[in-house]
Amino acid sequence: MNPTSYADDLARRARAASRLLAPALGERKNRWLGHAANALVTRTAEILAANANDIEAATRAGMSAPNVDRLRLTPARIEAAANGLHEIAALPDPVGSILDSNVRPNGLQVHKVGVPLGVIFFIYESRPNVTVDAAGLCVKSGNAIILRGGKEALASNTILHAILQDSLRACELPADAVQLVNTSDREVVGQLLQLNRHIDLAIPRGGESLIRRVAEEATMPVLKHYMGNCHVYVDCAADLAMAERIIVNAKCQRPGVCNAAESLLVHVDIAPTFLPHAAAALIAKGVELRGCPATCALLPIVRPATDADFAAEFLDLILSVKIVQSLDEAIDHIARYGSQHTETIVTNDLAAARRFTAEVDSSAVLVNASTRFNDGFEFGLGAEIGISTDKFHARGPCGLRELCSYKYVVYGNGQIRE
Amino acid sequence: MNPTSYADDLARRARAASRLLAPALGERKNRWLGHAANALVTRTAEILAANANDIEAATRAGMSAPNVDRLRLTPARIEAAANGLHEIAALPDPVGSILDSNVRPNGLQVHKVGVPLGVIFFIYESRPNVTVDAAGLCVKSGNAIILRGGKEALASNTILHAILQDSLRACELPADAVQLVNTSDREVVGQLLQLNRHIDLAIPRGGESLIRRVAEEATMPVLKHYMGNCHVYVDCAADLAMAERIIVNAKCQRPGVCNAAESLLVHVDIAPTFLPHAAAALIAKGVELRGCPATCALLPIVRPATDADFAAEFLDLILSVKIVQSLDEAIDHIARYGSQHTETIVTNDLAAARRFTAEVDSSAVLVNASTRFNDGFEFGLGAEIGISTDKFHARGPCGLRELCSYKYVVYGNGQIRE
Repeated sequence: MNPTSYADDLARRARAASRLLAPALGERKNRWLGHAANALVTRTAEILAANANDIEAATRAGMSAPNVDRLRLTPARIEAAANGLHEIAALPDPVGSILDSNVRPNGLQVHKVGVPLGVIFFIYESRPNVTVDAAGLCVKSGNAIILRGGKEALASNTILHAILQDSLRACELPADAVQLVNTSDREVVGQLLQLNRHIDLAIPRGGESLIRRVAEEATMPVLKHYMGNCHVYVDCAADLAMAERIIVNAKCQRPGVCNAAESLLVHVDIAPTFLPHAAAALIAKGVELRGCPATCALLPIVRPATDADFAAEFLDLILSVKIVQSLDEAIDHIARYGSQHTETIVTNDLAAARRFTAEVDSSAVLVNASTRFNDGFEFGLGAEIGISTDKFHARGPCGLRELCSYKYVVYGNGQIRE
Repeated sequence: MNPTSYADDLARRARAASRLLAPALGERKNRWLGHAANALVTRTAEILAANANDIEAATRAGMSAPNVDRLRLTPARIEAAANGLHEIAALPDPVGSILDSNVRPNGLQVHKVGVPLGVIFFIYESRPNVTVDAAGLCVKSGNAIILRGGKEALASNTILHAILQDSLRACELPADAVQLVNTSDREVVGQLLQLNRHIDLAIPRGGESLIRRVAEEATMPVLKHYMGNCHVYVDCAADLAMAERIIVNAKCQRPGVCNAAESLLVHVDIAPTFLPHAAAALIAKGVELRGCPATCALLPIVRPATDADFAAEFLDLILSVKIVQSLDEAIDHIARYGSQHTETIVTNDLAAARRFTAEVDSSAVLVNASTRFNDGFEFGLGAEIGISTDKFHARGPCGLRELCSYKYVVYGNGQIRE
């Protein structure tokens, strides 16, 4: 296999399929989503057999137990993936929807209308159910997708891909709309990233090194999902019981995800009242606290935090804690150490809430709610293909609309420019 | 001067200014726009003196008369630039405006709110009035701008920049929000394009080679404004008098701009009726026609078109003409030769209009109106910094809103995730 011609062929076929898919009716796309969902369930045995091969090879290669678990498919997980497709079918079609419109003084009706981006190259790691989600979101938004999963999941992805393509054919949609890079040759990825004439967007989802590599090599736009070093700031005017509930939820409900809190900032005025109680609640949940000198003085159980701790995305039951003198210091700390992902202020002071939401530059800034809500489902966008930490094109949760561009459709009755 | 440290210093100061500018009130930004507009008029003599130096050097260097004219400032042109700033002041502030919102079942109020992109690097050619427009649009949208005009305009841009900065200081806005690359060292551009930690977006405006160079070197997103090979398709169900008015306007009203028509497609059924009359009208306006064989057979005055003619952006009084057998052939021709900029169908057939607008993938697709309307002012967006031929982030005319990103601002009353 020649990586250049392999990549070129894949991308060309995806481009051709995207042209056929763009004008496809929502009805037909939804029929495919339902068909594929049913096929996944019907063909569970085949999927499990292929997955068993991946699991066996991964175990033999010494993959860690949590990673093997991420790789594992079960009837329940396959059903969940199928249900995900049904949920995508229930979302409104972004293609052709009017995003904005205005009638000009000369009578021209100017409509801003959603259109697919075209071809999306999705590069991701381990979990094979992501294969199904990503294909569902892309086809529903009228885009062709080129899937490149982790090599550990290749057997699982190959059968999932075959099922998705069989359903495309059965529903008279172009099978090439969902393509799989069925080789672990990394050079193919490099080649695909050169093909900006066929591929409109690359979306890497995985570790930071993967994302950096894609961002550096890609000749097309890249939607990046870097880390989330998310902060909860407990203001002097906070409801302290609410603040405790929020930091415990933000830190502990699912510590391994990007919108989990990694750092707690506490206003000096309420620190002596708030921190001992909140720290006890966090420690009871197994959280290790790493604090600034003032925090350590207040709570001798806390070990000192380094600068690296304040910048860290722990993805674990570890929390950095800092006592700040003011709202300004909290905002400055977030600007310095944060990753512009998700920050929360807990306060009943309207002026503080308004300043925090205006001045903190993150994809989501919340008032009196857990950071864990920065999510496509929770924000009402439906399923998401990732949470963008970029500012260009899309920021925060990326669902169907964020997989689209737009065009201006203008109706007149003979207008010319004078 | 060391290009690396020069670029780094410029970009750092722009980044710092952007942080101060982002939360600035619309009132203050509008005051600056008014102040700068007045200062431009008051200081006309200084501007004309600097411009005279540029003009003299350009003339001495043998610049062509049309290019010298583009470079020239006059009291009327300075006043027009000042009026442009007043018009930008009158536009709504995109920063903080709520683009979308929804209330979740758990009571969370999710708002999608406009925010500035940050720092914009604007690289453009000759016309010094663009300096004023671009600075006005960026500051109004809360962005710092780094201006890099053509070296022929450096004296003019230097005085314009000094005036804009004086006004920023007078209005208590950061002067570093408008920066000028005041050297013609091209290495500085290359260095700036590396600084994606300080610069959020590069916008090249000028010839294709400039745009390609910027797109290749930039490490930050680039908003590109490539060529416009715009089509007018006259359907078999067209009002032929309207079609003639539209093609004459689209081709002749201002042939040197990107949204002027470059190609005319005519349905075979009406070609014998329509083409002789329309061709006469075009030829009377000085247009040279280059036709497909069928066109040449019908109109012996027309010379044959090559494939290159059908792909060309003439920017001149030249028009390629093709007779097509069907709407499908028109759509296919546009997909093959077009540049996804602007296309018009002239028809009274609703089904044809619906298919053309759905299937032609251009930044603007018009029905019964001149291609010349694809413009920020004409679409009601206000002033524009360019017309994007990209699909990512912004497509078509880019005004204040397209210079912005967004964030999610979420209000709760203690919500946590279960």
